[in-house]
Amino acid sequence: MKLIRYGDLGREKIGVQLDGVNYDVSALGGDYDENFFGNSGLARLEEFVKANAGRLIVVPEGTRLGSPIARPSKILCIGLNYRDHAAETGAAIPAEPILFMKSTTSLSGPYDDIIVPKNSTKTDWEVEFGIVISKRASYVTEADALDHVAGYVLHNDVSERAFQLERGGTWDKGKGCDTFAPIGPFLATKEEIADINNVRLWLSVNGKMYQDGSTRDLIFSVPFIISYVSQFMTLLPGDVISTGTPAGVGLGFNPPIYLKPGDVVELGADGLGSSRQIVKAYPA
Amino acid sequence: MKLIRYGDLGREKIGVQLDGVNYDVSALGGDYDENFFGNSGLARLEEFVKANAGRLIVVPEGTRLGSPIARPSKILCIGLNYRDHAAETGAAIPAEPILFMKSTTSLSGPYDDIIVPKNSTKTDWEVEFGIVISKRASYVTEADALDHVAGYVLHNDVSERAFQLERGGTWDKGKGCDTFAPIGPFLATKEEIADINNVRLWLSVNGKMYQDGSTRDLIFSVPFIISYVSQFMTLLPGDVISTGTPAGVGLGFNPPIYLKPGDVVELGADGLGSSRQIVKAYPA
Repeated sequence: MKLIRYGDLGREKIGVQLDGVNYDVSALGGDYDENFFGNSGLARLEEFVKANAGRLIVVPEGTRLGSPIARPSKILCIGLNYRDHAAETGAAIPAEPILFMKSTTSLSGPYDDIIVPKNSTKTDWEVEFGIVISKRASYVTEADALDHVAGYVLHNDVSERAFQLERGGTWDKGKGCDTFAPIGPFLATKEEIADINNVRLWLSVNGKMYQDGSTRDLIFSVPFIISYVSQFMTLLPGDVISTGTPAGVGLGFNPPIYLKPGDVVELGADGLGSSRQIVKAYPA
Repeated sequence: MKLIRYGDLGREKIGVQLDGVNYDVSALGGDYDENFFGNSGLARLEEFVKANAGRLIVVPEGTRLGSPIARPSKILCIGLNYRDHAAETGAAIPAEPILFMKSTTSLSGPYDDIIVPKNSTKTDWEVEFGIVISKRASYVTEADALDHVAGYVLHNDVSERAFQLERGGTWDKGKGCDTFAPIGPFLATKEEIADINNVRLWLSVNGKMYQDGSTRDLIFSVPFIISYVSQFMTLLPGDVISTGTPAGVGLGFNPPIYLKPGDVVELGADGLGSSRQIVKAYPA
């Protein structure tokens, strides 16, 4: 299944995408959140869609899509998880996953604008393959890890490099700005992705391709990452773990290339659809 | 006012503390969360308590206290914000605040056990003065910052030093473990604290005083911190910003002193009450 959320920001309704058409399923009740994933929501949704086949209401064309998941308890990210990206940033291949968090207030819809923060000069892009957790995970083994997955999402881990790297301390200042986590267009449930180790990921700016990688080149695999993170904190249903970005971010060029108002960012991944963000200055 | 939450973990009810006695106010409805703080909850609570003076039901002695706030969208922390603590860790005085996040799944009650994570050898303590946000804050000025504060809480920013400092990348692995954020016993609303720049903070382990500082020695003040953080992300009602710890953490001793099962940690702050955690091994 492909799960979507649509409507105005903060008032999204739930839906599904079937053969490329978005349908409303809000009669199921609730939202795609911790409670949904943690209480057999996916199974109930599948039943609901089956029971209402042919009778679901189409979401009008042009309706805004929100993030396909409601605000989770956490958005975790793995840093430098592709060899080529580690190399382009001048960083060593990490011995174990680098973990950081994005503020959940950065969550944004797949076609929403990216707002360059005040005083930002180095807003950058990062196409990523994101994991959505289906059930509590604490000290899970790598073998059991995929039992804790609801599905996968396309994520642009937008990053302000000066805030991230030049303002002291951890990366959090440059990762969690508002609109810095466009997720979607949909959540693809686990069975939709034939081989999570062979997903092409790409990102272009103003039509020029900058990133074109594959999860084949992940240093740490999806099951390893889930198991690893769950050694440090409990993952809750609906939580997101973004698995890192391949080479081709703006920081990696000489001189670096950063986003400016008017730029159009497009990104996509096999089986996860594509998204598009227009860059705007603050205030938008 | 002093806000409390009591009852079993995950099923806490809301209450207030009046003259040292805890009363139930669950008839007010809701929880001490984003919705409460963002929709005049404090004013409604004050009305409710006044209207029911003499008729509130006492919470039975011995009832567990939970965190006085429900799980927020984020728990932000300022690192190395006391000169003496920066010195003891061998770090330079930061030029601007160091910002990091604790996973909100680390939130814990003031008398709950601290569970030493699997494979942990360096679990440490940090008494802190925490700010609770009352309304959305984005790009707020220092002058306006306190208008965005609901009140203050006592917080033990429990930290696993090996996970934080020796496992690569940011500090997040060592800050967000389950039970690593005991908060409370209560949220003291703003007017309860006469001078936020003169709050004594202390922490003892097994009766021996290790930390004894004051917010007088904060490098970056409460209003400055709120304004600063709001330049990087939107603060939501109910969010917590913990302002850093004074000298005397286990890491600062030579050799360092870390928590072991059976240890009793007690901490307190002027106007914010005191809390007490027993250290247990995983699984508890």
